[in-house]
Amino acid sequence: MYRSHNCGELRIDHVNQSVTLSGWVQISRDLGGMTFVDLRDRYGITQLVFNMEDNQDLCTKARSLGREYVITITGEVNERSSKNPNRPTGDIEVKVEKLEVLNESKTPPFTIEDESDGGDDIRMKYRYLDIRRKPVQENLIFRGKLAVETRKYLSGEDFIEVETPVLIKSTPEGARDFVVPSRMNPGQFYALPQSPQTFKQILMVAGMDKYFQIVKCFRDEDLRADRQPEFTQIDCEMSFVTRDQILETFEGLTRYLFKEMKGVELPKFPWMSYDEAIKRYGSDKPDLRFGMELVELMDDAKGHDFAVFDNAEYVGGITAKGISEEYSNKDLKKLTEWVMRPQIGAKGLVYIKYNADGTTKSSIGKFYSDEVLNSWKEKLGAEAGDIVFILSGETEKTQKQLNELRLEMGRRLGLMEGKGYKPLWVIDFPLLEWDEESERFHAMHHPFTAPKKEDVDRMLNGDHETMKALRADAYDLVINGVEIGGGSIRIHDRELQQRNFDLLGFTKEEAEDQFGFLMGAFEYGAPPHGGIAFGFDRLCAVMNGQDSIRDFIAFPKNNSGKDMMIDAPSLIDKTQLNELNIELTVKPEQ
Amino acid sequence: MYRSHNCGELRIDHVNQSVTLSGWVQISRDLGGMTFVDLRDRYGITQLVFNMEDNQDLCTKARSLGREYVITITGEVNERSSKNPNRPTGDIEVKVEKLEVLNESKTPPFTIEDESDGGDDIRMKYRYLDIRRKPVQENLIFRGKLAVETRKYLSGEDFIEVETPVLIKSTPEGARDFVVPSRMNPGQFYALPQSPQTFKQILMVAGMDKYFQIVKCFRDEDLRADRQPEFTQIDCEMSFVTRDQILETFEGLTRYLFKEMKGVELPKFPWMSYDEAIKRYGSDKPDLRFGMELVELMDDAKGHDFAVFDNAEYVGGITAKGISEEYSNKDLKKLTEWVMRPQIGAKGLVYIKYNADGTTKSSIGKFYSDEVLNSWKEKLGAEAGDIVFILSGETEKTQKQLNELRLEMGRRLGLMEGKGYKPLWVIDFPLLEWDEESERFHAMHHPFTAPKKEDVDRMLNGDHETMKALRADAYDLVINGVEIGGGSIRIHDRELQQRNFDLLGFTKEEAEDQFGFLMGAFEYGAPPHGGIAFGFDRLCAVMNGQDSIRDFIAFPKNNSGKDMMIDAPSLIDKTQLNELNIELTVKPEQ
Repeated sequence: MYRSHNCGELRIDHVNQSVTLSGWVQISRDLGGMTFVDLRDRYGITQLVFNMEDNQDLCTKARSLGREYVITITGEVNERSSKNPNRPTGDIEVKVEKLEVLNESKTPPFTIEDESDGGDDIRMKYRYLDIRRKPVQENLIFRGKLAVETRKYLSGEDFIEVETPVLIKSTPEGARDFVVPSRMNPGQFYALPQSPQTFKQILMVAGMDKYFQIVKCFRDEDLRADRQPEFTQIDCEMSFVTRDQILETFEGLTRYLFKEMKGVELPKFPWMSYDEAIKRYGSDKPDLRFGMELVELMDDAKGHDFAVFDNAEYVGGITAKGISEEYSNKDLKKLTEWVMRPQIGAKGLVYIKYNADGTTKSSIGKFYSDEVLNSWKEKLGAEAGDIVFILSGETEKTQKQLNELRLEMGRRLGLMEGKGYKPLWVIDFPLLEWDEESERFHAMHHPFTAPKKEDVDRMLNGDHETMKALRADAYDLVINGVEIGGGSIRIHDRELQQRNFDLLGFTKEEAEDQFGFLMGAFEYGAPPHGGIAFGFDRLCAVMNGQDSIRDFIAFPKNNSGKDMMIDAPSLIDKTQLNELNIELTVKPEQ
Repeated sequence: MYRSHNCGELRIDHVNQSVTLSGWVQISRDLGGMTFVDLRDRYGITQLVFNMEDNQDLCTKARSLGREYVITITGEVNERSSKNPNRPTGDIEVKVEKLEVLNESKTPPFTIEDESDGGDDIRMKYRYLDIRRKPVQENLIFRGKLAVETRKYLSGEDFIEVETPVLIKSTPEGARDFVVPSRMNPGQFYALPQSPQTFKQILMVAGMDKYFQIVKCFRDEDLRADRQPEFTQIDCEMSFVTRDQILETFEGLTRYLFKEMKGVELPKFPWMSYDEAIKRYGSDKPDLRFGMELVELMDDAKGHDFAVFDNAEYVGGITAKGISEEYSNKDLKKLTEWVMRPQIGAKGLVYIKYNADGTTKSSIGKFYSDEVLNSWKEKLGAEAGDIVFILSGETEKTQKQLNELRLEMGRRLGLMEGKGYKPLWVIDFPLLEWDEESERFHAMHHPFTAPKKEDVDRMLNGDHETMKALRADAYDLVINGVEIGGGSIRIHDRELQQRNFDLLGFTKEEAEDQFGFLMGAFEYGAPPHGGIAFGFDRLCAVMNGQDSIRDFIAFPKNNSGKDMMIDAPSLIDKTQLNELNIELTVKPEQ
């Protein structure tokens, strides 16, 4: 037997008991005739003590222990003379009588402490050491427990977890699929699912009524910090349900998870239409932890001989409170450069400084008198001491730029910190987006999203312009500016689904080839249904106030899609390629 | 709102309440002036009643409803005059006041009843209709609940569910991998995991202590009825643990699952060594629901001038009770043909009939007197009325053949039925199997399995013959002759792991290339660890006394690895192939 207790459970009540513990040597300290070893496992740290006077051999052996050695000890629990109130086991120590080294350890390439000195690449290569660090281990335990609670809640609501297949069919819609050559069906390929969307709808047609699954999904996209080629969704679908019932159910889930995992009671989630979110925040996932809303200034800005504004489709600004003293000309210049970076794309930045002494200073002072600028204050919610930043141009682009600027100023001014969690349902998304470049509609959500009931007739019979105005019965859950989940009421009618595929530019044959099974299913008694999917990795990160999802994934891939620890992807044998009836068109790097 | 209640919950207490229900039309019957409709959903069936006298339009509309139409009704709950005690809702019916058809249905290609008239192919193509059938739906619900209970138990035992990656590295060991070309790393491939084996061991090195995962695994094998290219495992690993603690933990899980799911209290599981299982049953997964054990007859059979037995490495028999009258010469001839089929491969079948009248009749009567044959009875456990079947030849082959014959006789004589569940731990497997053909050792379990402690020195220093006798610290859980789970204590020492790879014929470079990360991890304080994996699909089937795993999988593939509903695998675009830097070497079937 390797242990009678773990390293986190001994308390004052255990004093005088003989115990056996196993774990890793966190640190070893020699103090005079004593050696103290901190023994660590998943559950905590227990102090071991060896005394040169009592047992010289044993103490000498203890002094030879290196960091991360794996040992088993037996000894007696003693009350400590100097207790450590910061550690649950801090009242006791174990006086060791027997010590066995189970495995030695080379010196780790970085320290196994809360703050590590390892860079990203080396942490990923030695992920088994990185996970020994408490913050990473706690993240993984958090994730495991979040899954437990999610399943508990949904099971309690009569949802059944059903596993959908991983080897499915490739469809050219949406992001790129990962594909898998079929040996048994030469020349043919499976695809890995980007989501179980069609399967969960099929399960509704099959009468499963309430489905969920915590499920891996796959997208072969170019990667960013918060994207992974494989990611996890809480995927859900319900039958005989209205939008409001879905929002209620999953608001319930979210509130439950925050309560159980973080001890936080979320308030009732506000709702905001897509149009309103764009107007007020320039984003369909507004961060409600701070204000600084977009204020449209068209009537005010036009007609003062300032051509930039006069010719703009949109002029709008945001007010940054209390920084007029703080922000120098140099700062303003730098901020102007920031908004002009290609990632943001503004043509310039107009500012108005409402100084504390009542004067104003503005980059457009030539065109607008102090009186005029002061007259904007009320609308902008600006006061003495504030700076207003104004952008202009095409409506959509400019709103997006103002959103980026708002978030940047929010970060700089620390407006997001300590504000807790601000959830929001964004509703009434457009059904279709017109893409100028490809001259076709794209589904804003996905091709299975239903229009709002009042828009069905217009969708079936309307002209091109009408289509642009169709609203989808779709919704996103946003928390602190991060899209946590999204879903919709689905089409459950063959004709409407066919019409949607037509609008999206599918030929009849393409639609039939790719989604014929679903449209076929709609002819055999498909119930009204709808659902939602939560990004599980992102939910973990947002609940813990972190930006990156990577440390909530046990074995993430880097930005090149590589697993640095196992060194995947890798070359495969020629015989394997032959069996799969494929050959390479490149000479792979060795 | 589509419903106030589901179709399974109305009782006598609801009488006089106004309710709204939604569901599928199971059946519609016209009786005089009344129309009765059975409305079905996942939760049950409720009888609706329409009365021609009360509302002619509504009743006429009801009469137009076809099978599987989806409807919503509102009406009043009434007590039934003739109750149906076989149905939980059988005390009531709903007198309909409002009826809306939500969706029509074509006539299904097979009946949506417990016993369907649909063949396998059509059931798979219209899987959404097949799942509406109660037995299939109940199987999927059973599976979902089994996962809930598994997670509940393991979480309660401090196991953390950790998701391991699906896009990993191909290794030529074991079965064939499915592979995934990497677009971002031209010429390189990911593989889909055959199991998360190395990752769960890495998690132990990482200090996660107790890991589990209900996880999809993948094998590109030629398929049989009980094999699927993607299947699900309950995958577990523990640190600082002995074999006996693992068996105790997972016997606990199994007993819990049978109690919760089937209301069955399993007895303490017996243990049997691999050698004993082979000797007594000719199989490492014996079905203990019946006896008919193998009896070795070498001393008895030899020396009677019967060359077949005299030259045989092994002679053994089984006793089929009470069939000596029943089994005619023709039956015996047929059974002889059965054992001589290539799938079994026996050269012939010897029988001894111990007749009820005390006489004997045997196919080897020429060589063995009645007296001799009667003297075998005690050893064989045979009595008047029994038939003994004897096979001879090479030991291993003959034992396997006797196992097949035993199972066949068990089936024919109905010896497995009504015997409940007979669990068994099979332990002490050989570590290595010598393969004559390839002239190399194979790992009986997998290359990470540790030898038993007492065999470690022999493994590191022994000669070739010694290797054949090494025992692994491995174990299988067998229930009713089906292997439900298997696992082992793992190697956690670099030298021993390297030695095992050597024995398995890996070059140093191959071992380093494929498993260098694991051997590297063993140098940084790897704890002793071990684990187990349960076949989740098979566990579902065995718990429900079913042979095939297919109906416990929502969307299974057929024997060609095809999903008949979505028609996968399928062709992909030339542009997709180009992006992946591969081309086909076959012209695919259209």
